[in-house]
Amino acid sequence: MSILSLPQPYLLFLGDAVDERDAKTAMGLRDWAGDRCVGEFALPGVTVTTGLPRLTPAAARARGAQALVIGVAPAGGIVQPSWIPALLEALRAGLDLVSGMHTRLDDVPVLRSAALELGRRLIDVRKPRQTFPVGTGRRRSGRRLLTVGTDCALGKKYTALGLVRAFEQRGVSATFRATGQTGVMISGSGVVIDSVVADFIAGAAEALTPDAADDHWDVVEGQGSLFHPAYSGVSLGLLHGTQPDVIVMCHEAGRKSVHGLPDFDLPGLREAIDVTLTLARRTNPGVRCGGVSLNTVTLSVEAADALLEQHSIELGMPCADPIRGGARFDELVTECLRG
Amino acid sequence: MSILSLPQPYLLFLGDAVDERDAKTAMGLRDWAGDRCVGEFALPGVTVTTGLPRLTPAAARARGAQALVIGVAPAGGIVQPSWIPALLEALRAGLDLVSGMHTRLDDVPVLRSAALELGRRLIDVRKPRQTFPVGTGRRRSGRRLLTVGTDCALGKKYTALGLVRAFEQRGVSATFRATGQTGVMISGSGVVIDSVVADFIAGAAEALTPDAADDHWDVVEGQGSLFHPAYSGVSLGLLHGTQPDVIVMCHEAGRKSVHGLPDFDLPGLREAIDVTLTLARRTNPGVRCGGVSLNTVTLSVEAADALLEQHSIELGMPCADPIRGGARFDELVTECLRG
Repeated sequence: MSILSLPQPYLLFLGDAVDERDAKTAMGLRDWAGDRCVGEFALPGVTVTTGLPRLTPAAARARGAQALVIGVAPAGGIVQPSWIPALLEALRAGLDLVSGMHTRLDDVPVLRSAALELGRRLIDVRKPRQTFPVGTGRRRSGRRLLTVGTDCALGKKYTALGLVRAFEQRGVSATFRATGQTGVMISGSGVVIDSVVADFIAGAAEALTPDAADDHWDVVEGQGSLFHPAYSGVSLGLLHGTQPDVIVMCHEAGRKSVHGLPDFDLPGLREAIDVTLTLARRTNPGVRCGGVSLNTVTLSVEAADALLEQHSIELGMPCADPIRGGARFDELVTECLRG
Repeated sequence: MSILSLPQPYLLFLGDAVDERDAKTAMGLRDWAGDRCVGEFALPGVTVTTGLPRLTPAAARARGAQALVIGVAPAGGIVQPSWIPALLEALRAGLDLVSGMHTRLDDVPVLRSAALELGRRLIDVRKPRQTFPVGTGRRRSGRRLLTVGTDCALGKKYTALGLVRAFEQRGVSATFRATGQTGVMISGSGVVIDSVVADFIAGAAEALTPDAADDHWDVVEGQGSLFHPAYSGVSLGLLHGTQPDVIVMCHEAGRKSVHGLPDFDLPGLREAIDVTLTLARRTNPGVRCGGVSLNTVTLSVEAADALLEQHSIELGMPCADPIRGGARFDELVTECLRG
């Protein structure tokens, strides 16, 4: 069994980024793991900032930082030669390095030899090799919520994080369970579920959400979609292994076809919910849908509200955009926690 | 992309087996790849036989054999010390070694060094490391049939092999596409789909069943079950990647719960077919069910026939036991090939 566990707190590395879109990882960590980020570190020429204190690796280490996280992803996703002196400085200051880039850190010889010499870890979160037992389907104590989706890349991670925050604000014990690399960086632990060997997908999901107190919620980041031609296997294994009590269906307003595969229409929300519940009942006969999380980033306030209202009436359940929050999101949270 | 490809023809190794049940691999290869097995090879004390000519490795090599297949699996599934001289003899005679045992051949130092020295291959089929691209869902030419099941281990491979044989007897061009280790040994190629990394299950199934002539059938060995708490992810990825025109639902008479997991009831045949078709339509809207393959090995001829008749009427489709064959199986074959 090998749930990933990352050294925290972090120092966030921004390289020499001039486009905030390249620094999505750093911004996500600031937003969702801000209490475990001591500051940021960048090269001359950077124009992007997280707003956290600008610290040298040594100063960050003195404030408790355990790792430098590469929070920037330039085109190509490779470690830039211009970063190497800064990364070596971090290793020498006593920080491990954490990366989600395509290049593996230990494929960069100068980093590998420095880490070896200094006794530091180089942690590549993108495609870790994790091994798990086969799933058993055994019912576990505690409660579980899984965010699922009509497609990839439409807000399942964000929804799970938002629900955990809302649960905690209501005094409900909850843990975000990460299943993708950014989620693992935020949480500091988890499983990159799509990198697990096929036989062990459900087993990995079971290991990620072990027995817990009866009133505790594991809120699990969904991956892929049961309706995605390439990734549905991951999604079904995760669904069966998680054995959720509640699912929340995530969708993006206006998205009609599978991300990157325009020939594949997305299912309707009702169909997506019905199929998901039918399959989910195999490992949790009591599963129900808490509502819909709709990503309305492309819409005006008025248009978003009208669409949320329309879906809510049509489906007979709460429908909210976690980013917009408000009363609709409160309703969704209440419905998830009901019973 | 890495579809496995095994050296054939085979010489079948029986060790010193005295129980035919231990020699299931050899018997399966005799039954389904007999035209690619030149003979058998065993140690003194063996009482089991495939009925094929008893040959030394050198004699088998002279008849064209390319590999010695370990066709016997004693308790524990490990390479027996008493086999080593025979395996070395095979390597020296010019044969590669093929194994599906738990022990990896290249974890046996004396075999590894001999193979290295002689330029022979040690091929472990159980858990190969195969890499594939992500699936695309692109519709491919040619026709595809996938055997699916209410559970594991109830005849999906046997059904696929029986259908290929029947298709060929009717002059229909067909290829058995193996997705498990025994299937790969029989076919000489394929993908051990449950050992593929989760992100690539559908991509592997796509690679296994490429574009083909319009009247050609790929008959794909199913794995696991959409209803299995541990293996459903493999099954859904295989279903979506195969994009079958026809599914055949496999079941075992009298089996009520998931193999090894008595707390999990199996779905009814109608439910299993409906759920499978609903999901399969994502990558092939024209998919249909050709019928049911029922494993009736535990029943008398009369009881089996009555049960097949009952299911056939209830479901409104052919229901046959491929092992019993006969008119019912002919009907199933006809229905699969219809249209």
